[in-house]
Amino acid sequence: MSEPALTKRGRPGYDQRAILEVAVAAFNEFGYDATSMGVLATRLGLSKSAIYHHFSSKEELLEQALDEALDGLEGVLLEQSAQVGPVIDRLAAVLRGAVEVLTSRLPYVTLLLRVRGNTDVERAALARRRAFDRSVSALVVEARDEGSLRGDIDPRIVTRLLFGMVNSIVEWYRPEGPEDAGQLASDVLAVALDGLRVSTRSTGLDRLDHR
Amino acid sequence: MSEPALTKRGRPGYDQRAILEVAVAAFNEFGYDATSMGVLATRLGLSKSAIYHHFSSKEELLEQALDEALDGLEGVLLEQSAQVGPVIDRLAAVLRGAVEVLTSRLPYVTLLLRVRGNTDVERAALARRRAFDRSVSALVVEARDEGSLRGDIDPRIVTRLLFGMVNSIVEWYRPEGPEDAGQLASDVLAVALDGLRVSTRSTGLDRLDHR
Repeated sequence: MSEPALTKRGRPGYDQRAILEVAVAAFNEFGYDATSMGVLATRLGLSKSAIYHHFSSKEELLEQALDEALDGLEGVLLEQSAQVGPVIDRLAAVLRGAVEVLTSRLPYVTLLLRVRGNTDVERAALARRRAFDRSVSALVVEARDEGSLRGDIDPRIVTRLLFGMVNSIVEWYRPEGPEDAGQLASDVLAVALDGLRVSTRSTGLDRLDHR
Repeated sequence: MSEPALTKRGRPGYDQRAILEVAVAAFNEFGYDATSMGVLATRLGLSKSAIYHHFSSKEELLEQALDEALDGLEGVLLEQSAQVGPVIDRLAAVLRGAVEVLTSRLPYVTLLLRVRGNTDVERAALARRRAFDRSVSALVVEARDEGSLRGDIDPRIVTRLLFGMVNSIVEWYRPEGPEDAGQLASDVLAVALDGLRVSTRSTGLDRLDHR
């Protein structure tokens, strides 16, 4: 969180970013509908008008929070690693990038994953999320056509299972916990692309610890 | 849903199971806390006392609903296919069984996955869910020791990623949809155990469509 800055009146204050962080934490804890601007003001130790100085409405807070998650995910698709090279490697780069966005912008992605489409802002966010999913599905189809990804599973199911695995990370990942985000991304790729099974052909070494 | 039976007074009524189904649907739609016995009575077209004839409290409805999900999952661990044979096959049987319970008891598992531990009933359900996860984690460790499952990923992460993928199915699976539950279980096993990548060694055939 940003360091509280001194306001014009000399009291410790919050910049726009810090207000957004506190709001997102409250939305995740109590639910968006149950969090009023009054509750936010109390949490921040600010007057409501001080919040309105930065955000025109609660919905603008939500919109900026969802943008933070969606801009991150969409940015992954625009990286060179997602645009150039064998499609299976591009798909891997997108999965790794999605895990990185999820872990580095955890509260924002958590909020995004709970959106159900009750307002225009939520529906716009869902539309962007669906467009992201379609881009990933298109990569899955391309990787099949390239011959690098198995062809016996419906690409929509593949995409859903992959993002089911990736998105579930918000349920338990904590930045201060023992799991390194980069290692976690590698683990997701290892499971998703290569699977957990050790094929019998590759276990040529006898396990000496079982003497 | 069970056929409404005729009550003693000759009006169409609900048996215990049918009341439970309607309650679980309401809990999933509106949230457990937001669903009063009065709301349930209105939905069922019954008096509250008619519900209390079958269930002593709203919490008993929740408890029986969570039992339905947990009994199913715990039953999977007790199947012979989860008890006998190579550990990797037992793990596969547990994953397949979990997908089958999830798809056949969808509203009950959906409710279970939303439990956050606010009451004794919820905490007891969470404890059973954690015990189930520990049993699966133990299988993952055993499969590593057996040499059939890759050893380079923390078994707790493996279990979380596997159940992240499996549990995410509640978000989109609909019994009336095009996806066959058995095929879906096979797809989950294919991704989790063998991965999506077609290894270059196994693509000996030139792709003639790329001339």
